[in-house]
Amino acid sequence: MKIILVGASGDVGQAAHAELSKRHQIIRVGRKTGDVIADIADRRSIEAMYDQIGAFDAVVSAAGDVHFAPLTEQTETSFRLGLDHKVMGQVNLVLAGLPRISDNGSFTLTSGVLDRDPIVSGTAAATANGALAGFVTGAAIEMVRGLRINVVSPGLLDASEARYGAAFPGHERVSSARVGRAFAKSVEGAITGQVIVVG
Amino acid sequence: MKIILVGASGDVGQAAHAELSKRHQIIRVGRKTGDVIADIADRRSIEAMYDQIGAFDAVVSAAGDVHFAPLTEQTETSFRLGLDHKVMGQVNLVLAGLPRISDNGSFTLTSGVLDRDPIVSGTAAATANGALAGFVTGAAIEMVRGLRINVVSPGLLDASEARYGAAFPGHERVSSARVGRAFAKSVEGAITGQVIVVG
Repeated sequence: MKIILVGASGDVGQAAHAELSKRHQIIRVGRKTGDVIADIADRRSIEAMYDQIGAFDAVVSAAGDVHFAPLTEQTETSFRLGLDHKVMGQVNLVLAGLPRISDNGSFTLTSGVLDRDPIVSGTAAATANGALAGFVTGAAIEMVRGLRINVVSPGLLDASEARYGAAFPGHERVSSARVGRAFAKSVEGAITGQVIVVG
Repeated sequence: MKIILVGASGDVGQAAHAELSKRHQIIRVGRKTGDVIADIADRRSIEAMYDQIGAFDAVVSAAGDVHFAPLTEQTETSFRLGLDHKVMGQVNLVLAGLPRISDNGSFTLTSGVLDRDPIVSGTAAATANGALAGFVTGAAIEMVRGLRINVVSPGLLDASEARYGAAFPGHERVSSARVGRAFAKSVEGAITGQVIVVG
């Protein structure tokens, strides 16, 4: 398969790449580095990415910014980042990709653990994660041409420990290999409309 | 208790009012009618509403627009309505209400059935509902001063049958009385961080 991997340079993106690149052609996409440069915050940048790549069989998104802060310090602007970038950015990858993706292709998005196991300062992330779960639940029954859609919801990756570990007291860390296999389950399997928990 | 009821004139708002007004003082808020006029799409309108009302013990929100359309016909603009209004509007009610609400007060939001039991054309609604579930999960552990937060997730109300029934084939209808009691459970009970399903 020819797979577009958005957010390829992040910890989750690298985990997906390590597993999927064993068997598939991967087009790495990032804001600053990659085979193709694109920013999912901008619908036109997404369209240009698809124009540049041409035909493809699957989209894997491991992209999406969100602002971490205590709830009482979240402003409308800071809170909206997660809705605009992590949610609407990934939704736009799907909306713009629908008319272009091959028959029987798949979209696999990334959310995270915080809507089922919250942490302090994680409310905007929990909101974005919940939105993505709702999105794939709704979108899966509207897919055409054998298309599928899922979202991978990983716990904190071992690879992310140094940067984020202190904010996740007591959370089990998950191996990058397990996260990579979750993306393979979505892309190579047959399930749709699922939140694939890795926790 | 003195309870602010936002979206009081809708089917869900009337269900909440019928139950809560038996025992509490209700300030009805709406875009066009009510004791106080406010639009949750506008953070300044929310602030003005709180300024006008003064001290209060609970907020019940039954407000939030979302666009229904087949997924392939959703544009970025149409899809964003649910994130901007139903999600960010209700989030802003909480963010702006946090420094004003009485100790041991509560926030109760409204989502809906579509993130757990989807229908065609309901993906934007499913996304908004999931976001609100994530929001209360995250926000509940950050509440101060004994505050609580929940979201009521009702199925299609019997009162909404004439307008929306055809879009919900086979969905069980729920009585307005049951929906009203779900709000009482949140406001008068002690639970927090819960999605209160009425389905």
